[in-house]
Amino acid sequence: MGYRAAVAGASGYAGGELLRFLAAHPEFEIGALTAGGNAGQPLGALQPHLRSLAGRILEETTPETLAGHDVVFLALPHGASGPLAAQLGEDVLVVDCGADFRLEDAGEWEHFYGSPHAGTWPYGLPELPGQRAVLAGTKRIAVPGCYPTVSSLALVPAFTAGLAEPDVVVVAASGTSGAGKAPKTNLLGSEVMGAVSAYGVGGVHRHTPEIIQNLSKAAGEDVMVSFTPTLAPMSRGILATCTAKAKPGVTYAALREAYAAAYDAEPFVDLLPEGQWPSTAMTLGANTALMQVALDERSRRIVVVAAIDNLAKGTAGGAVQSANLALGIPEETGLTTFAVAP
Amino acid sequence: MGYRAAVAGASGYAGGELLRFLAAHPEFEIGALTAGGNAGQPLGALQPHLRSLAGRILEETTPETLAGHDVVFLALPHGASGPLAAQLGEDVLVVDCGADFRLEDAGEWEHFYGSPHAGTWPYGLPELPGQRAVLAGTKRIAVPGCYPTVSSLALVPAFTAGLAEPDVVVVAASGTSGAGKAPKTNLLGSEVMGAVSAYGVGGVHRHTPEIIQNLSKAAGEDVMVSFTPTLAPMSRGILATCTAKAKPGVTYAALREAYAAAYDAEPFVDLLPEGQWPSTAMTLGANTALMQVALDERSRRIVVVAAIDNLAKGTAGGAVQSANLALGIPEETGLTTFAVAP
Amino acid sequence: MGYRAAVAGASGYAGGELLRFLAAHPEFEIGALTAGGNAGQPLGALQPHLRSLAGRILEETTPETLAGHDVVFLALPHGASGPLAAQLGEDVLVVDCGADFRLEDAGEWEHFYGSPHAGTWPYGLPELPGQRAVLAGTKRIAVPGCYPTVSSLALVPAFTAGLAEPDVVVVAASGTSGAGKAPKTNLLGSEVMGAVSAYGVGGVHRHTPEIIQNLSKAAGEDVMVSFTPTLAPMSRGILATCTAKAKPGVTYAALREAYAAAYDAEPFVDLLPEGQWPSTAMTLGANTALMQVALDERSRRIVVVAAIDNLAKGTAGGAVQSANLALGIPEETGLTTFAVAP
Amino acid sequence: MGYRAAVAGASGYAGGELLRFLAAHPEFEIGALTAGGNAGQPLGALQPHLRSLAGRILEETTPETLAGHDVVFLALPHGASGPLAAQLGEDVLVVDCGADFRLEDAGEWEHFYGSPHAGTWPYGLPELPGQRAVLAGTKRIAVPGCYPTVSSLALVPAFTAGLAEPDVVVVAASGTSGAGKAPKTNLLGSEVMGAVSAYGVGGVHRHTPEIIQNLSKAAGEDVMVSFTPTLAPMSRGILATCTAKAKPGVTYAALREAYAAAYDAEPFVDLLPEGQWPSTAMTLGANTALMQVALDERSRRIVVVAAIDNLAKGTAGGAVQSANLALGIPEETGLTTFAVAP
Repeated sequence: MGYRAAVAGASGYAGGELLRFLAAHPEFEIGALTAGGNAGQPLGALQPHLRSLAGRILEETTPETLAGHDVVFLALPHGASGPLAAQLGEDVLVVDCGADFRLEDAGEWEHFYGSPHAGTWPYGLPELPGQRAVLAGTKRIAVPGCYPTVSSLALVPAFTAGLAEPDVVVVAASGTSGAGKAPKTNLLGSEVMGAVSAYGVGGVHRHTPEIIQNLSKAAGEDVMVSFTPTLAPMSRGILATCTAKAKPGVTYAALREAYAAAYDAEPFVDLLPEGQWPSTAMTLGANTALMQVALDERSRRIVVVAAIDNLAKGTAGGAVQSANLALGIPEETGLTTFAVAP
Repeated sequence: MGYRAAVAGASGYAGGELLRFLAAHPEFEIGALTAGGNAGQPLGALQPHLRSLAGRILEETTPETLAGHDVVFLALPHGASGPLAAQLGEDVLVVDCGADFRLEDAGEWEHFYGSPHAGTWPYGLPELPGQRAVLAGTKRIAVPGCYPTVSSLALVPAFTAGLAEPDVVVVAASGTSGAGKAPKTNLLGSEVMGAVSAYGVGGVHRHTPEIIQNLSKAAGEDVMVSFTPTLAPMSRGILATCTAKAKPGVTYAALREAYAAAYDAEPFVDLLPEGQWPSTAMTLGANTALMQVALDERSRRIVVVAAIDNLAKGTAGGAVQSANLALGIPEETGLTTFAVAP
Repeated sequence: MGYRAAVAGASGYAGGELLRFLAAHPEFEIGALTAGGNAGQPLGALQPHLRSLAGRILEETTPETLAGHDVVFLALPHGASGPLAAQLGEDVLVVDCGADFRLEDAGEWEHFYGSPHAGTWPYGLPELPGQRAVLAGTKRIAVPGCYPTVSSLALVPAFTAGLAEPDVVVVAASGTSGAGKAPKTNLLGSEVMGAVSAYGVGGVHRHTPEIIQNLSKAAGEDVMVSFTPTLAPMSRGILATCTAKAKPGVTYAALREAYAAAYDAEPFVDLLPEGQWPSTAMTLGANTALMQVALDERSRRIVVVAAIDNLAKGTAGGAVQSANLALGIPEETGLTTFAVAP
Repeated sequence: MGYRAAVAGASGYAGGELLRFLAAHPEFEIGALTAGGNAGQPLGALQPHLRSLAGRILEETTPETLAGHDVVFLALPHGASGPLAAQLGEDVLVVDCGADFRLEDAGEWEHFYGSPHAGTWPYGLPELPGQRAVLAGTKRIAVPGCYPTVSSLALVPAFTAGLAEPDVVVVAASGTSGAGKAPKTNLLGSEVMGAVSAYGVGGVHRHTPEIIQNLSKAAGEDVMVSFTPTLAPMSRGILATCTAKAKPGVTYAALREAYAAAYDAEPFVDLLPEGQWPSTAMTLGANTALMQVALDERSRRIVVVAAIDNLAKGTAGGAVQSANLALGIPEETGLTTFAVAP
């Protein structure tokens, strides 16, 4: 129980998932749980699935309630992390699950989020080349968005291995928890069950520049990305179908080799055996990303299909994994590769 | 009640949906209902949702049981339609919901289906340019596959209007009924609920050459198509995200205009008002295809998202619509634009 | 097109389903569509699944906008129908899908709804003994609640045949559309998918006195009813498991005979063949109630399991069926026994 | 890593869930994984969600492959455990997730299962009065059925406290994983999504005598039980609505007090705060049973609604909990009260 951790935004979906991971983590002690409008309520009224914490009372999210912790996890609406983080000590590890510090380009931030850029923090995707060194010992982590997590894991190896042209199409199906817990008519069960729908089409979704940022770094050139998110009738999970034009002469063997080289030693990313394709159900509640690759010889497109749990590897699991690295704890501590299925 | 119609394969999903449409059709009288292994059983044991036909007994699928009808709808496994159709009279309207007669290129058929090509019949997608003339009076109709139906409706206008480069990526999410009624472990409810998964990735799905055929005709040149089907946790519906590289200079206004021109007069295809995106739930049980278009200025890709009910417009509804045209009945007869929602 | 019909509350789930049935009804012309907060919007923005009505503009729900119609269907929140109906002409057929006029006992109304009793209208469940005579020619109809519809159809024959003791337990699983379209956190897709939950437990649900009213009439004595509603992860449908203590000497044969006698001639209620049990999927979108009976010899309980679509037979379909009777139109007009499955 | 554990039936749903719990258990080392028809395959082909075990090869289920373990978990079809267990050493802890050794009355076994009774083992429901003493040190455990687990936890306190008459009605909704992994048409996703259906109605379900056994022991007299299972469109979870006639004079306060007394000290059973009702989603993947009680004053029925995960507390979690007791390990080891939600 080396580290005392607070969770800001403990009443939301990301906050609940952080608590689920932290409670199973042998090195973390759960400290303050804070919320906005739900402050004052017992956690059990809002997160009844976290039984042994049900009696804990939510405090207001303020610098004061968050003080006195070794680690503060922020699971707040976009834009709220910046001002708050500035009031937390520089020796405190702050892990932001929001978007505020993900983008490096201020212009991109302002274009997509419509507010001044708060800055850029070390990016919490350890599987990116060289990223573990960046995260080691850091006191600030920007947890990636869920779509950028899965899309980047799916396509970065193709770019770092020089197999793909900078012409990418990503279509991803997400469970509804990615849209949050605020009640909206279009997110009612009656509306989403039996329905797949699209939103944020045509390059306007806010995760687009983050995907472009990651892939362009890997490619060493600007990558064009057409990204379309869709909503699927399930609570959790993202399946991303990621295609990139293959460079001339690229073979399936080279493609497979590149992904094996990238991920064979990774604890949380698996290239599945040939013939097996990922399903979001294989990742529910686990900190894993599963993928499979194909080369469509006729259209000359690399196709990588990847699955994650948007709240686990896509948010809270990824946050804990990066926090482990920042704190010098073994990276896999408190995380699991075992999903809840069926 | 001008026409007596038989349904071969009445115990399957496509057969059941055909019966649902035929029973609501004022010009059809339902004749023989036939099946393979289920012959001898009452329809109500297999299709308990078709109450007023529950007592009808399924006969064997043979040329004899199908004789004496004006129209025969075939909802059989791929490969079964060819031999059977050859034994049905030339004056009988035969509407094949299987794949046997969809492809024009024998080599493509053999490559994807692994059997000799049975031939090519008039293609039952009335919204294709000039296709109503082809269908008028015909005695043989090849009903399109569900993915080709939605993908072609989504992209043909872009090609006929000269807006798109022959570089297409289609990712489609389908309900599980598209996989049929034969019991398989991977299709169990326990496996598919909460799961989105991919299959037939990398250009190997059998609907790929049919999509290529339709788009290439519209484009007047060979179109490269990367097609990835995915399975979503719902019984019915397909949402297809269809992108094509835009030709230089193409504007959103030109794109929208092309789709409005193509579909404003169509009874069963709607370009939604700007800002509204299709959901499969808007089409459940209806013979409609709904779509919306975007132009991603940065990646220069046209993105068309389209929804259908795979069993309705994607199979049985489309079959009845084409049969109406073949028989000279008003095209909308017995079909509806009203979906069952929520 | 003999009758011009208005729908008040056209933007909600019951209103949308009424429109779906009315559009398919050869004797109704759809007149004014009205709403509360959604007035001024096109119907297509709120009910995008009703394509051919998408351009119709919603008017305010007032006596004026509803004037000039032969039939007015009210699909309004409980309590709103009473004042409005008083301002509609006595020669207009008013069909209320709300609760206001269902209960005969003012004390029961006030106890469960907390407001003064508006009165009692002819009860729109034609399958109750003698009820068709009550509905013929009436100008006011109280459409039953969804749970009372299925529970009463399930148990009334046992009481009218004198087979059951007045000791009833009903547990029903409903789809989420029964909870309406107003956004609430507990009805979000993320919350309801993968979840069955209970609510209104212990005799406090407002449909309880309505079930008691119907069963007590059939029994000729006060029937004790323990009613528990649960929410299941589907949009539509109710499966009600209804049990009553069997009177001494009652046999399975007598039970089955009573139900066959009650329903063999009914167009919309089916006692399934022995061995087949109802599923809500068999009723989706259809105006049917399907049931099966058992006698548990050991516990001496009659068990009747019944399924309906809560928005169809449970609300809008039942409303149209009763309206047909009131207007002297053949009862089955515009209604279907064909569900959308799978 | 004190104990080496084998799992027989590792390719099924119960087997997979056992492995998920065992892998998280600090005192168990996973030994042989065996199967029937799937022997020879890698576990990853059948349980792709258990990543770190994906490469393990399934062996044949035989006494030999199961030899050399401290604990053997059996997750086999009913009837298979008896012969196999007889060949395992008497010093080996054998935990049977099947039904073979649950019933004490041979006549009941033969009536419901149609085969000779194999015997009776200590019953693995630690929360039953006195049961922990029975389980301490035992070498044989009969894991309860999923429905009996939740029903007994829900109603035993009412009987032990003398509050309930022996007149019980239980209606339970289960996820489809309870029906197993063998492919059947009625369990296809297309059939179960959007559907609630009943089965085993009228006292014929095999879990009925087990529920009667548990409740009758608690009551000290024969309890009459009407039990109806239903299938809900979710993979996991059971919500049981359990009612019993209240004895004269019983009050809500007495009822609540009895349940608080029974469960306040239990680590895995929670009586929820007043006003909060259980949902299966609160238990997904956790070893918890959650419940709430009501007294319906009018029908004089006690109503207890309880939720579990059928594969966790209902099977594999309960198995591990009882194994912990048998081995003298702290009871909560390797188990969690944190569910995966939303």
